[in-house]
Amino acid sequence: MRKVEDFSDWYAEAIENAGLRDKRYPVKGMDIWTPYGWRAMTLIDQRMREEMARTGHGEVSFPLLVPATEFKKESEHIKGFESEVYWVTRAGDNDLDVPLLLRPTSESAMYPIFALWIRSHADLPLKTFQIVNTFRYDTKVTRTFMRMREIHFFEAHTCHDTFEDAERQIAEDLEVMANLTKDLALAHLVTKRPDWDKFPGAYYSLASDALMPTGRTLQLGTMHQYRDNFARAYGITYEDVDGEHPYVHQTTYGMSERLLGAIVGVHGDDTGMVFPPAVAPVQVVIVPVLEKGKQEAVAEAARAVHEAIRGQIRAHFDDRDLRPGAKFYEWERKGVPLRVEIGPREADGKEVTAVRPDTGEKATVPKVDLAAGLSKILDRMQADLLEKSQQALEEGITIASDYSEAGRAITRFGWCGEEACGHEMEDATGLSTLGTPVPEESIRGTCVACGAETDTVVYAARTD
Amino acid sequence: MRKVEDFSDWYAEAIENAGLRDKRYPVKGMDIWTPYGWRAMTLIDQRMREEMARTGHGEVSFPLLVPATEFKKESEHIKGFESEVYWVTRAGDNDLDVPLLLRPTSESAMYPIFALWIRSHADLPLKTFQIVNTFRYDTKVTRTFMRMREIHFFEAHTCHDTFEDAERQIAEDLEVMANLTKDLALAHLVTKRPDWDKFPGAYYSLASDALMPTGRTLQLGTMHQYRDNFARAYGITYEDVDGEHPYVHQTTYGMSERLLGAIVGVHGDDTGMVFPPAVAPVQVVIVPVLEKGKQEAVAEAARAVHEAIRGQIRAHFDDRDLRPGAKFYEWERKGVPLRVEIGPREADGKEVTAVRPDTGEKATVPKVDLAAGLSKILDRMQADLLEKSQQALEEGITIASDYSEAGRAITRFGWCGEEACGHEMEDATGLSTLGTPVPEESIRGTCVACGAETDTVVYAARTD
Repeated sequence: MRKVEDFSDWYAEAIENAGLRDKRYPVKGMDIWTPYGWRAMTLIDQRMREEMARTGHGEVSFPLLVPATEFKKESEHIKGFESEVYWVTRAGDNDLDVPLLLRPTSESAMYPIFALWIRSHADLPLKTFQIVNTFRYDTKVTRTFMRMREIHFFEAHTCHDTFEDAERQIAEDLEVMANLTKDLALAHLVTKRPDWDKFPGAYYSLASDALMPTGRTLQLGTMHQYRDNFARAYGITYEDVDGEHPYVHQTTYGMSERLLGAIVGVHGDDTGMVFPPAVAPVQVVIVPVLEKGKQEAVAEAARAVHEAIRGQIRAHFDDRDLRPGAKFYEWERKGVPLRVEIGPREADGKEVTAVRPDTGEKATVPKVDLAAGLSKILDRMQADLLEKSQQALEEGITIASDYSEAGRAITRFGWCGEEACGHEMEDATGLSTLGTPVPEESIRGTCVACGAETDTVVYAARTD
Repeated sequence: MRKVEDFSDWYAEAIENAGLRDKRYPVKGMDIWTPYGWRAMTLIDQRMREEMARTGHGEVSFPLLVPATEFKKESEHIKGFESEVYWVTRAGDNDLDVPLLLRPTSESAMYPIFALWIRSHADLPLKTFQIVNTFRYDTKVTRTFMRMREIHFFEAHTCHDTFEDAERQIAEDLEVMANLTKDLALAHLVTKRPDWDKFPGAYYSLASDALMPTGRTLQLGTMHQYRDNFARAYGITYEDVDGEHPYVHQTTYGMSERLLGAIVGVHGDDTGMVFPPAVAPVQVVIVPVLEKGKQEAVAEAARAVHEAIRGQIRAHFDDRDLRPGAKFYEWERKGVPLRVEIGPREADGKEVTAVRPDTGEKATVPKVDLAAGLSKILDRMQADLLEKSQQALEEGITIASDYSEAGRAITRFGWCGEEACGHEMEDATGLSTLGTPVPEESIRGTCVACGAETDTVVYAARTD
């Protein structure tokens, strides 16, 4: 039960034992991506690239450095970020005339260029995304994947002719998020953040939160409706059919390496990491269990199994000169979903033994059509993990009608929608407001703060 | 003939007309990757990832920022780079105690960590690579792909137990380079750079150069044998079988977005860009040629052609409401290797017409097994482009026995190997030394500078 009792230490150890990142880089908040961790991250990136291709987004890559002059154009934006920005002030032996900042996010890099790219309604919608490194000088305690100073970041930026078309984009983003969280096997709760917690410069912000075993929520992604707020600051207009030049409406959709942190936290167990098969760098590890006099036949059979499945499954053949037990333990800590053991019996016979380390379940799988047989087990495991996560989220939500009923994780209260009442609730409970649910949930009840009748609710939780 | 007569302007225009980069970003030397250009670059990256997987390199991603203290450990290295470094000196409202620099290359980020990763001979060879953004404050005139301040960069870093094993790595790198240049359809000349031009800190440097239409050479990639030079600076040792702790031997292999610049320069023609099919973002564009009364049937047939090939070929169906001629011109400027025209005849018949814009060649291809038929044309085009490039390189090499025989592009002289003679040759001819050929070429001749008998040669050229 170490994971639940001592989550913070468990989390750091699970990542270290799985070899996902190396924290020994000599700059705080900047960890090294190992080959294993990077493979996991890029598999998630790849899923997003597929979703972006499906929905007609073009992948771009904008420069990292933003001139201070561009950054200052959007005054609300800069208020939110200026204390978190890294500044390049020198190059070679020269002091720069205009300091350059390392992007915390790319609005101020992209939007002056969008103003050049967009001329008429025929250029809209403009749908782009990029996957890049971003930087935030966060002064709080840093934590691998969760709170970093160099962040592996996904950001989609779109421009639309109307507010309504931008609204359709947000709906599409929610669908993409739903598809992705399925592959991550992460149940999530989507809310509209309260006005006092929206993204700087946004008209409104939606967020997707997962529930961690600590009872805290973790933000997985955010979708922002900017309306024409940024377009006005950066002069992004288009010629409409009447020859007028209205401002475009914009949205963004952001996610980061936190997704991997959520996977560690939600699916891991006391032995360590557990990868959902859809994004596991290694889905199946093949371990020969040698026996005196049978070594050659067993090694040969294990190699044949690897050859048979490697085109269809991300498989690894562990032929190192180590005891099988040591290998089992190592791959279990790396979170590999399925282990295939090949001993003398399997070498001679028509079946192999597959073990799910997360449950200990053993299955015998026919060698004929082996990849299909193993895929079936992987698919079930994927579904099991999602269901478990879904159940934990549902059980973690408490429906409360007064402060005393607040639960250990997420609590739903009636709320009149007034900011003052929101803050009162936060003060009284020590929780943070997540927001109002998306899609909406309608009740007949009263605001937990002022007692006024209301049909709307708010979710609140301790947040990571 | 504009390309040859006015290469520099032609080059910038070809890139702009193809829409590969946008130069309007307000920081000098930092261009925007458009979706089309980024797709081309990532196709090249993907080929390198395949080669790296084939040769057992693990992909890592190290932080961008390097503490000044680490950078100063390798004194020769810093001498080469310190005038080209961007410095982060401030974060939020704080001046940093230790300034951070934006990596110009990653030795000083990686090697302190390699010292932790490597404990014994069992950890060797360590073969890693990363594809990242790097930064050089180059004060010369910037040029898209060729000379940038933010550079899309490939770098492989390996550690070995012996000098000989590191030598084997260099041989493997040359094989990888040969495979890659085949896909880029770029003939190249590999030389060992003279000592005065090797990478700072290297024992020796090999380089692969392509020949541009200007007669200048362009460096495509470099492979460095470090011996234990960096290992001594960063304390990278391993425990060998005798319990001793010798230093490791290291190599690096670097390439950049220049590869794309070379493709533009070598393959482009007066109309603009020409992509080798292997790395073309769009290999085949399908353009319906509508005719009154037949619109529906033609559009339908074009769509069917797209559906039939899209799984096997990177195909785009251009169904915009534009004249076919305008589309032809646009896609030709984008360098798409093959155009399929669907008119009423093709809609009704059993064949389609495929046009190679680079030569104007037309071919009729049966609809049955269309993807295979088009692939065959693409393969021949790939081979044609490589052969053309090979021929241009061969014709560009002049074998000279004295300065007056120097050619318009690359010249080979006899050389005794003395640095003084090399510099004399450079002064007398105005050429730069590329280096001695790899594999070696043996002659019976004399040094072009001192007249001493020698069996070795040196290549020289004007370089980009």
